[in-house]
Amino acid sequence: NRTGFPEAILAQGKDHDDLLIIINGYCTKKNSNNLLITRLDKNDYNRLKKDLKHLEEKGYNLDYNNKAKILIISNESKNKLSTNYGKIGIITGGTSDIPIAEEAKVIAEQGGAEVLTSYDVGVAGINRLFPQLAKMVKEGVKTIIVCAGMEGALTSVVAGLVDVPVIGVPTSVGYGIGGKGKAALYGMLQSCAPGIAVVNIDNGFGAAVFALTIIKNNK
Amino acid sequence: NRTGFPEAILAQGKDHDDLLIIINGYCTKKNSNNLLITRLDKNDYNRLKKDLKHLEEKGYNLDYNNKAKILIISNESKNKLSTNYGKIGIITGGTSDIPIAEEAKVIAEQGGAEVLTSYDVGVAGINRLFPQLAKMVKEGVKTIIVCAGMEGALTSVVAGLVDVPVIGVPTSVGYGIGGKGKAALYGMLQSCAPGIAVVNIDNGFGAAVFALTIIKNNK
Amino acid sequence: NRTGFPEAILAQGKDHDDLLIIINGYCTKKNSNNLLITRLDKNDYNRLKKDLKHLEEKGYNLDYNNKAKILIISNESKNKLSTNYGKIGIITGGTSDIPIAEEAKVIAEQGGAEVLTSYDVGVAGINRLFPQLAKMVKEGVKTIIVCAGMEGALTSVVAGLVDVPVIGVPTSVGYGIGGKGKAALYGMLQSCAPGIAVVNIDNGFGAAVFALTIIKNNK
Amino acid sequence: NRTGFPEAILAQGKDHDDLLIIINGYCTKKNSNNLLITRLDKNDYNRLKKDLKHLEEKGYNLDYNNKAKILIISNESKNKLSTNYGKIGIITGGTSDIPIAEEAKVIAEQGGAEVLTSYDVGVAGINRLFPQLAKMVKEGVKTIIVCAGMEGALTSVVAGLVDVPVIGVPTSVGYGIGGKGKAALYGMLQSCAPGIAVVNIDNGFGAAVFALTIIKNNK
Amino acid sequence: NRTGFPEAILAQGKDHDDLLIIINGYCTKKNSNNLLITRLDKNDYNRLKKDLKHLEEKGYNLDYNNKAKILIISNESKNKLSTNYGKIGIITGGTSDIPIAEEAKVIAEQGGAEVLTSYDVGVAGINRLFPQLAKMVKEGVKTIIVCAGMEGALTSVVAGLVDVPVIGVPTSVGYGIGGKGKAALYGMLQSCAPGIAVVNIDNGFGAAVFALTIIKNNK
Amino acid sequence: NRTGFPEAILAQGKDHDDLLIIINGYCTKKNSNNLLITRLDKNDYNRLKKDLKHLEEKGYNLDYNNKAKILIISNESKNKLSTNYGKIGIITGGTSDIPIAEEAKVIAEQGGAEVLTSYDVGVAGINRLFPQLAKMVKEGVKTIIVCAGMEGALTSVVAGLVDVPVIGVPTSVGYGIGGKGKAALYGMLQSCAPGIAVVNIDNGFGAAVFALTIIKNNK
Amino acid sequence: NRTGFPEAILAQGKDHDDLLIIINGYCTKKNSNNLLITRLDKNDYNRLKKDLKHLEEKGYNLDYNNKAKILIISNESKNKLSTNYGKIGIITGGTSDIPIAEEAKVIAEQGGAEVLTSYDVGVAGINRLFPQLAKMVKEGVKTIIVCAGMEGALTSVVAGLVDVPVIGVPTSVGYGIGGKGKAALYGMLQSCAPGIAVVNIDNGFGAAVFALTIIKNNK
Amino acid sequence: NRTGFPEAILAQGKDHDDLLIIINGYCTKKNSNNLLITRLDKNDYNRLKKDLKHLEEKGYNLDYNNKAKILIISNESKNKLSTNYGKIGIITGGTSDIPIAEEAKVIAEQGGAEVLTSYDVGVAGINRLFPQLAKMVKEGVKTIIVCAGMEGALTSVVAGLVDVPVIGVPTSVGYGIGGKGKAALYGMLQSCAPGIAVVNIDNGFGAAVFALTIIKNNK
Ligand SMILES: Nc1ncnc2c1ncn2[C@@H]1O[C@H](COP(=O)(O)O)[C@@H](O)[C@H]1O
Ligand SMILES: Nc1ncnc2c1ncn2[C@@H]1O[C@H](COP(=O)(O)O)[C@@H](O)[C@H]1O
Ligand SMILES: Nc1ncnc2c1ncn2[C@@H]1O[C@H](COP(=O)(O)O)[C@@H](O)[C@H]1O
Ligand SMILES: Nc1ncnc2c1ncn2[C@@H]1O[C@H](COP(=O)(O)O)[C@@H](O)[C@H]1O
Ligand SMILES: [Mg+2]
Ligand SMILES: [Mg+2]
Ligand SMILES: [Mg+2]
Ligand SMILES: [Mg+2]
Ligand SMILES: [Mg+2]
Ligand SMILES: [Mg+2]
Ligand SMILES: [Mg+2]
Ligand SMILES: [Mg+2]
Repeated sequence: NRTGFPEAILAQGKDHDDLLIIINGYCTKKNSNNLLITRLDKNDYNRLKKDLKHLEEKGYNLDYNNKAKILIISNESKNKLSTNYGKIGIITGGTSDIPIAEEAKVIAEQGGAEVLTSYDVGVAGINRLFPQLAKMVKEGVKTIIVCAGMEGALTSVVAGLVDVPVIGVPTSVGYGIGGKGKAALYGMLQSCAPGIAVVNIDNGFGAAVFALTIIKNNK
Repeated sequence: NRTGFPEAILAQGKDHDDLLIIINGYCTKKNSNNLLITRLDKNDYNRLKKDLKHLEEKGYNLDYNNKAKILIISNESKNKLSTNYGKIGIITGGTSDIPIAEEAKVIAEQGGAEVLTSYDVGVAGINRLFPQLAKMVKEGVKTIIVCAGMEGALTSVVAGLVDVPVIGVPTSVGYGIGGKGKAALYGMLQSCAPGIAVVNIDNGFGAAVFALTIIKNNK
Repeated sequence: NRTGFPEAILAQGKDHDDLLIIINGYCTKKNSNNLLITRLDKNDYNRLKKDLKHLEEKGYNLDYNNKAKILIISNESKNKLSTNYGKIGIITGGTSDIPIAEEAKVIAEQGGAEVLTSYDVGVAGINRLFPQLAKMVKEGVKTIIVCAGMEGALTSVVAGLVDVPVIGVPTSVGYGIGGKGKAALYGMLQSCAPGIAVVNIDNGFGAAVFALTIIKNNK
Repeated sequence: NRTGFPEAILAQGKDHDDLLIIINGYCTKKNSNNLLITRLDKNDYNRLKKDLKHLEEKGYNLDYNNKAKILIISNESKNKLSTNYGKIGIITGGTSDIPIAEEAKVIAEQGGAEVLTSYDVGVAGINRLFPQLAKMVKEGVKTIIVCAGMEGALTSVVAGLVDVPVIGVPTSVGYGIGGKGKAALYGMLQSCAPGIAVVNIDNGFGAAVFALTIIKNNK
Repeated sequence: NRTGFPEAILAQGKDHDDLLIIINGYCTKKNSNNLLITRLDKNDYNRLKKDLKHLEEKGYNLDYNNKAKILIISNESKNKLSTNYGKIGIITGGTSDIPIAEEAKVIAEQGGAEVLTSYDVGVAGINRLFPQLAKMVKEGVKTIIVCAGMEGALTSVVAGLVDVPVIGVPTSVGYGIGGKGKAALYGMLQSCAPGIAVVNIDNGFGAAVFALTIIKNNK
Repeated sequence: NRTGFPEAILAQGKDHDDLLIIINGYCTKKNSNNLLITRLDKNDYNRLKKDLKHLEEKGYNLDYNNKAKILIISNESKNKLSTNYGKIGIITGGTSDIPIAEEAKVIAEQGGAEVLTSYDVGVAGINRLFPQLAKMVKEGVKTIIVCAGMEGALTSVVAGLVDVPVIGVPTSVGYGIGGKGKAALYGMLQSCAPGIAVVNIDNGFGAAVFALTIIKNNK
Repeated sequence: NRTGFPEAILAQGKDHDDLLIIINGYCTKKNSNNLLITRLDKNDYNRLKKDLKHLEEKGYNLDYNNKAKILIISNESKNKLSTNYGKIGIITGGTSDIPIAEEAKVIAEQGGAEVLTSYDVGVAGINRLFPQLAKMVKEGVKTIIVCAGMEGALTSVVAGLVDVPVIGVPTSVGYGIGGKGKAALYGMLQSCAPGIAVVNIDNGFGAAVFALTIIKNNK
Repeated sequence: NRTGFPEAILAQGKDHDDLLIIINGYCTKKNSNNLLITRLDKNDYNRLKKDLKHLEEKGYNLDYNNKAKILIISNESKNKLSTNYGKIGIITGGTSDIPIAEEAKVIAEQGGAEVLTSYDVGVAGINRLFPQLAKMVKEGVKTIIVCAGMEGALTSVVAGLVDVPVIGVPTSVGYGIGGKGKAALYGMLQSCAPGIAVVNIDNGFGAAVFALTIIKNNK
């Protein structure tokens, strides 16, 4: 992978057999990095695990993150996790946004970032936001990913308080008109706070990869 | 008018002749209240003014508010403006929201409210918001109308700070996806701040009438 | 909670473990009010109930309202239900709107309101509407919440008949174009009846909290 | 024209030269009925009038209805207006809906119907609705066309009161979300009043032709 | 029921207990007509059947139409099915539209119409359309209901061939953009064939009731 | 231009100066083909004509097609119009679709096709469709472009009658829901007639280029 | 079947009994071609297989393609598969697009085409695209079907590289705004690469039938 | 201005008098930076220029950029333009995207960036893209802004070729479905190329401010 990002396969929309072929194919390649299977349901993971026993016997490690819905297939003999590219902050408005934030976290860490998180700091927790943000800035995060659903206004609040680039991830939280992330996406795109760009609804993956381009070019 | 609200005619979508007929018809009725012609362009007002000279001769007063785009036709001999129902606050995020706020203000005042305004306190002016809100609360406003476009997050901010009912008026400010008030409307409907209800995009009129129902039942 | 509203957790979108952590965390706080878990499916409630036995042993009461899909966790030693803030009316057009009305009712009562209800008075039952409304007005309701799906016109009818503020709650009833609450929401926002503001589709919770701001500032 | 409806040309989207060719072509055909040019702006009519002088010399009559925006080209020697197919009622909610109602009226009359109208009976004028409807029913209208914008609820009200088929024509009146006839169309399609079918927004023409099919098959 | 239409309850969105209460309530009323429970899944019907044994013992008949998803609760001692109001034609484009057509058929028959059907005559079967239509016209149908999904063009074809009013029912058949009945609805509303009005997507019920208003006023 | 298509510049969205630079730049290139400026308003053409006098002096020919809104800049010394690639049919439903059809015609002819047209054969003119289609097929057209607005059903009708590929061009004709080409586009995409593919609304240009790929690979 | 395309029944939206009737009816017709049941779930196929045993006994062959979700019912004594009409290329962007591509492949082959495929050549595999395309062109494909989801840009890339007509099939791959094929469809319709026409989202069937019209008229 | 960005006023939606008040107010503040008036039509600029003569007399410089539609009000005695924060690349697909690119360029330069541009390199000019990108990378741009309309695929192409963060700006270029920037926005949000985040349609301003946060935190 030319740009040094983790190799990621989107499980959603692929059936069991396709995934097996892709994974086995990848693991026979020499010097390959970690392989990430994203948006993998727990049940689908359990089925995969059974059919990938031979990989574990060959020294591969299967590590499933239940919140992030990501399976990491690694092989210690092959590549080492490096986290010295720089720091990324990840913030969520509520509890429901955490799965997307965790997806971003796993991708960012696999891509070589150190990640600082602060979850559930929107609305009711807004008083907890300020010290958390202050700490992140002091620790030197080079960019902050904000995952927020419903009206998604946390993104603007954060962008108004910090100078680093803020990456908005609207999450599919909320019902009624503007629900499922639409109001959050529209709001982030309409925001008049300085220094926001967005990725698609629930795209924690894309936010993390974008954040990695920032810190990798930042050195 | 049973509920004691000002009689209002929406000029938009009516031609010159229709308006003349409606106005003349209304002014021949006995003991009628003030008549408000809303969403009346300046040019259309000028044309009307010429053809309503006979009303001025009969003691009617034509008062055109250029920002609010409202013509007030009053007759001192007939009704007195009373403002003792209670106080209403009106806030805007930016300069572009002011016409809608002024529409609300005229309607509210004509309906018997005392109005306190604080314009252009969103985003850049957020530091000016707190003292203004504090003042409104101290003065005893019974409800606050918030006019905001783009992402419309000011409504949530205000609702998070005060205990009185907050009436959100999304304004048709902003371009691109979610523009023309859509993001603001969606955001206000998705807001998780307590105590918000909304009227349609640019409906300063409806917000004022709703505010009047609150203060009139509040005595 | 600064504004004196009931503390409410939206179960939708949170998994079992998240809910347990939130509930347990809340119940260890001193002098906390009742805790409401909203939009909680019966099955999820049953699972929670098992894992919250220890709370019941400590004197907490778990009261699940199946229509409203709300779990009320209360502790007699801690807070008393007060209903002396004032009266709120709640009306539905049909039978299918009742769950949303019940959500509003539970929230309003927990927030200190006395609630008068009149369900299924739209369309076929319109002849039952007039005496019911008259009774509510006579009893002194300070605001009326109208839950209506399909075309949602009941809201306008009510607003045309009463002088108190009317809060429209479009419900996700109806199929085809404009279904799932869209026609009702659009219709309420387009209504030319005086004195209507709206909350989002199915947002009985938000309507009740807004109604509470009206009656609490009404005293 | 096989079905006996008036021959109508939609001027909108056609340029001056196209219209001239179509009109001249039609008028050279023998025994042709009246020709209707619909959605013709006054300015465009004035230009046409000049270039159609030769038709007037040949005994054709050009009659332009400014509200309906229809030009009727008739020739007394050729066809007689018959109105003995039956009666149609046409109702509007407000003043702004009248142009669409007038379009329907001209078409219905040209197609041989007797038309009873009652305009501006929605909202404020609802008390005038009942006697007007009663009169129409007593006069024996076989169907009623209801033109209404904004939320369009008048259609349901009428359908709930009469037994004849009600044809809903949403009009492009209203601004904000659901404006330009969308809320009215959605509401009419979602209506639970019995006996409503709809035509497209502002399609007074289509409503009249449909009404004609009802009365013509009714004899 | 004033207008003589069958009393119909929409099961969709009501739970088992609500339905039981409504049915039992209705059947204790004297001289009530047949009761129709529409959009009732087979499973839900089976559950109802068990809990309505007492009605069958009292002489009520429960007749479930699996295609139409309608349960008819009748009582021979009470009302007689009359079909002498007139004839209605019902046509479908494909096999998938039949459930909606059957819903319309049951309602129309219960309301006193004689129904002639011709299914699956669109697209591939267009050659079968002409003789079927000719037969319907010859038999004297006073109106034709056309149920069609996908692009819904069958409605225009029929309206172009017959002189009676054509009622379009877009069905939720078709996938991709314009699927689920949207293209069919839009197409029917945009049709330039003379004599079409429409009801909402899948609203076989509404089409039948509308057709009944035509034939009942036709006598 | 590698594929042998005419070089086309979309004037829409470019200002006068940009167009001058592009045209002058192109005409100084050796052996360049004809240059087509599409979607050029008459007024803009007149302005261009003045500033391109020097081209005419150098032997260039400026030919403006008012219906198609295309300016063809050719130079006899440079390239010859060849029409021997094959035949393309172009059909429109109404008069309002002709500008789009003409855009397609000019592009197709400039690209080397022989074009057969048949305009205004939809709806009222459907009886004229059959002989026209028969003639096109007999003349050996290799593909037919159908331009249709409103419900756009003509495309399906044609595709059901011929065996050659049918290219649907929805035109922005029609008002109300589904207007401006939406119903036509959705209908063409939902069509179950065999052998249809579509281009975007009003994209006569794209349809012609696609047709050219068919005939050029057909030899 | 006049045009020589395979007879196809869309299983989606038809119940088991309907399918049985259609299949049995078709197979009793003399000299009928192969019958294709499309969009048939594996479970539904298994149920059908049991109830179609009698067909197998009569010499019919049931061949279910699990990726394409198509059941082919053939009878060797009746028709022979011919593939001499010409060659069609089919390309997919990712693994998730393969089912749609396979649907197209089965239909194209049944219709008499020879099909060349190249799957998963978008994004990561773009370097594999060029040689694959070159090979297709060299082999003489007369048209290329491109199945792509998400942003669907592969279609433009292909159209920019080859001279044959490119048929775009947006697939319902991708989440968030523009997901489920919308961005792909919009992008293909907006593409400025020369020589693209599109079918609806996931309509592999329609793409194949259109491709067949190209090659059959190409001989 | 805390973050060191240029102070910018959006002229769109503000009337002449509002702008005068804002500008005069700003210019009386001490040590203020340059003031930028964005989205200012040439005509509005000319009117402003007349009423701001007094500023020019006080040493202010009014510099209007016609492509970018930005007026820069600077005062040499007050602030110096610094461009030493780092380099930003700006690319457009076509000529029509240049105004948005120029808006971004002015903002970026005023904020202290050095800007490298490469316009009109999409579609036809794709062969010019590679050397231009290579040059930008070699010069050390820290981020690239890509302005593209229609399908907007240029953004993905660029992101696939460079390692720096790519900021997508969909432009409102293109007609029909997905036009006015919608397809471009959706496509950029759906892109699977690594390292893209987006701002709203035509938001060159927001893209530039975001780019500035990247380079300012990059030092
Ligand atoms: N969770 C995710 N969300 C968005 N994109 C993803 C995700 N996981 C993988 N991708 C991207 O999707 C592209 C297509 O995935 P695949 O279909 O697995 O080849 C990959 O190259 C990844 O860059
Ligand atoms: N500016 C406005 N915005 C919204 N509604 C209005 C406005 N002005 C008047 N109205 C309402 O619109 C209704 C219809 O107006 P009219 O068409 O004038 O009868 C009136 O009864 C008013 O309640
Ligand atoms: N009328 C038109 N409709 C659609 N696309 C066009 C039209 N005219 C030109 N184009 C295409 O639009 C692309 C971009 O045009 P331009 O902005 O002129 O470079 C050109 O390469 C043409 O392929
Ligand atoms: N998978 C498919 N996708 C799109 N159209 C199809 C498919 N399968 C069959 N069709 C078409 O859909 C039409 C209606 O199908 P049916 O309802 O089976 O008569 C048939 O005539 C086919 O042309
Ligand atoms: Mg910031
Ligand atoms: Mg509050
Ligand atoms: Mg009221
Ligand atoms: Mg009725
Ligand atoms: Mg007809
Ligand atoms: Mg064909
Ligand atoms: Mg090509
Ligand atoms: Mg990159």
